[in-house]
Amino acid sequence: MIQLETNWSFVSDGEEKPDGFSFAGIVAGLKDSKKKDLALILAPKNSICTGLFTQSTVRASCVDICEQRIKKSSGLIRAILINSGQANACTGDFGIQHTLIATKEVSQLLGINEEEVLMCSTGVIGIPIQIKNLIDNLPNLVKELKINSLQNAAEAILTTDLVDKKITIETFIEGRKVKISGFAKGSGMIYPNMATMLAFLTCDVGVDKEQWDKMISIAVKKSFNAISVDGETSTNDAFIGINSGKKIDKKFLSKIQTGIDIVCQSLAKNIARDGEGANCLLEVLVEGAKNNSDAIKIAKSICNSSLVKTAIHGCDPNWGRIISAAGNSGIDFKLDVVDLYIGDFQILKKGKLNKYDANKVANYMQTKMNGKYLVEDIVSITLNLNSGTEKGTAWGCDLSKKYVEINSEYTT
Amino acid sequence: MIQLETNWSFVSDGEEKPDGFSFAGIVAGLKDSKKKDLALILAPKNSICTGLFTQSTVRASCVDICEQRIKKSSGLIRAILINSGQANACTGDFGIQHTLIATKEVSQLLGINEEEVLMCSTGVIGIPIQIKNLIDNLPNLVKELKINSLQNAAEAILTTDLVDKKITIETFIEGRKVKISGFAKGSGMIYPNMATMLAFLTCDVGVDKEQWDKMISIAVKKSFNAISVDGETSTNDAFIGINSGKKIDKKFLSKIQTGIDIVCQSLAKNIARDGEGANCLLEVLVEGAKNNSDAIKIAKSICNSSLVKTAIHGCDPNWGRIISAAGNSGIDFKLDVVDLYIGDFQILKKGKLNKYDANKVANYMQTKMNGKYLVEDIVSITLNLNSGTEKGTAWGCDLSKKYVEINSEYTT
Repeated sequence: MIQLETNWSFVSDGEEKPDGFSFAGIVAGLKDSKKKDLALILAPKNSICTGLFTQSTVRASCVDICEQRIKKSSGLIRAILINSGQANACTGDFGIQHTLIATKEVSQLLGINEEEVLMCSTGVIGIPIQIKNLIDNLPNLVKELKINSLQNAAEAILTTDLVDKKITIETFIEGRKVKISGFAKGSGMIYPNMATMLAFLTCDVGVDKEQWDKMISIAVKKSFNAISVDGETSTNDAFIGINSGKKIDKKFLSKIQTGIDIVCQSLAKNIARDGEGANCLLEVLVEGAKNNSDAIKIAKSICNSSLVKTAIHGCDPNWGRIISAAGNSGIDFKLDVVDLYIGDFQILKKGKLNKYDANKVANYMQTKMNGKYLVEDIVSITLNLNSGTEKGTAWGCDLSKKYVEINSEYTT
Repeated sequence: MIQLETNWSFVSDGEEKPDGFSFAGIVAGLKDSKKKDLALILAPKNSICTGLFTQSTVRASCVDICEQRIKKSSGLIRAILINSGQANACTGDFGIQHTLIATKEVSQLLGINEEEVLMCSTGVIGIPIQIKNLIDNLPNLVKELKINSLQNAAEAILTTDLVDKKITIETFIEGRKVKISGFAKGSGMIYPNMATMLAFLTCDVGVDKEQWDKMISIAVKKSFNAISVDGETSTNDAFIGINSGKKIDKKFLSKIQTGIDIVCQSLAKNIARDGEGANCLLEVLVEGAKNNSDAIKIAKSICNSSLVKTAIHGCDPNWGRIISAAGNSGIDFKLDVVDLYIGDFQILKKGKLNKYDANKVANYMQTKMNGKYLVEDIVSITLNLNSGTEKGTAWGCDLSKKYVEINSEYTT
């Protein structure tokens, strides 16, 4: 068990489930590839749920239903059904019908209220969901809850993702073991403002609705809302966090916040690293800003620049593009006082070119370009504006020919 | 001579120069490729100039100097020096020094005031301009003005562009022949908000400063500010329009406006079509909008979507991505009333899938994918929101592996 510096520890596979929660993931025949495509999360009674959803004006109706049901029940949600293969967006009347049919069926199988079930979909836009296959396989899905595999659920929500994305951490609070689990899918259409992916977090410490909303919102700002794969915002994407369990003394809530932050940042970084066609994780830290929001805005502008992303891909320490992308953020800063680093190499010193060995910098970037998926393959850029005391980080990835290939020839 | 429907006609090569203006373009040794890299425009006395410049907060100092000199002289500008190879941005003190040295030298060679000379640069960011080569070649450049070649000037400002971009049109107003010429460079870093390219327009009809500012601004809104190659905004890019000559009756100004619009739209479309790695021009018309600004915003959001651009590249009529990109514009619209066309094929009818032959649509897209550069290779998308009477068009291009290749391995 690896100890995190924050007193939270990683939990190994098989022991991932927060107390009281169940997970399942199966093959329901929604994808041509015959891979897992249907997942279920079952939460204990009196669980508290928060959801953040896409900012796009074109949303799948399942997203609308999620939002309505969470609001109507003040967060008292019991189950989340998730399918991959079809996004169930822009499918006309089918959209809402299929969501209602599926969630009703799940509620009956689980013996809970229809309004306590949410549904999230991901996959191709505009094609109706393979509803017969989905419904036919719901009994199998519910049966799998006994096996209780977060791993299977994490696999079943993937689309073009190369690897599953999950994390469970635990700590002890006054002698009691508490756990937080998360899993997510990403890949394309990844851009800030909660419009970006599917991600689910479960926590076995009870936290009141209002407090929980705040805590999730804090974590999302510096995780999912700070990543970019291609600047695209999807019709469907959602983050849902559920807690359930005995409450703890308020003085320990900051510890829970730290745990939520760890889980969200881990999932977000994994999503960016596994961006379509990506070979590395791009981590941009902006320091010395007037405020955190300016810092994140500049960092995101750098992460989202096609020219920076292609330069990273080409292992080209093209600092001009980095500075130019920072300028496109719309945030004013003084070029003649900035320090810029790529990895540990200082490129600009008070706005002037520092002496550095361009080959060494290119070599540093080259060592991080890993065709295989490793979240440790990080090309880091640090921009110090030297104009304040605040900082912010954003994450992205390189832009490769593979991205174009994947998106010119996308199938399920 | 091809007749335009607006009474303006295209002027053939060699007869391109508006009365009183001179152009030159030479090889000055700024580019490794030994291609033309230095251009000059000389305008008659009392010419009136308007300039629109990049919105980036990181700008080359030559841009600042352009803006200052136009403002200080109320638009009385005589010459524009343009170099390619080095953008002269983020070069510290060199930036301003080199611009001042070069414009001073030009003014002396031409016998005009230093303040009447502008300078525009394009190329690699962060590397000082090859100032010795530039200065040494200025006498040759000025000598070339006698030959008066707009063609050479148009070639000398290119960077990764595959073809030059120029247009001259003429018409007769009360028996007097009048001409408007334009030339531009684009390729990468092309995104709306005047931050996008170098483009120069000359017109041999005299128009007052205030009126000229307005006319240029109208033309730019529906041309250069409606194109996108990669969502990038450059440190340097500029559009400068100069007029000089006998004035005309105010009632004919709308005819001049039409001419300016034609020139700007032609250059803008050529820039989008010649986007790095592009195989076609993407033209998106949004109709039935509440206002023109909403329509352009949605059209630009579609043109700028990596997922739409890769789908176009793959000849995939992926209307879900088009609708999703429209939703990302932030402009609200009702999905269940929209009509969507790709080419002449109706894909959505009042928000519902229309019967169409997907192979035929793919085939239509395929016929437009031309490896060779042809501005007539247009994939057109029409989205009717059926919610108003206004419309707007934006232009872009497909996203190919070639774009990634060019920008991972960029040299001059």
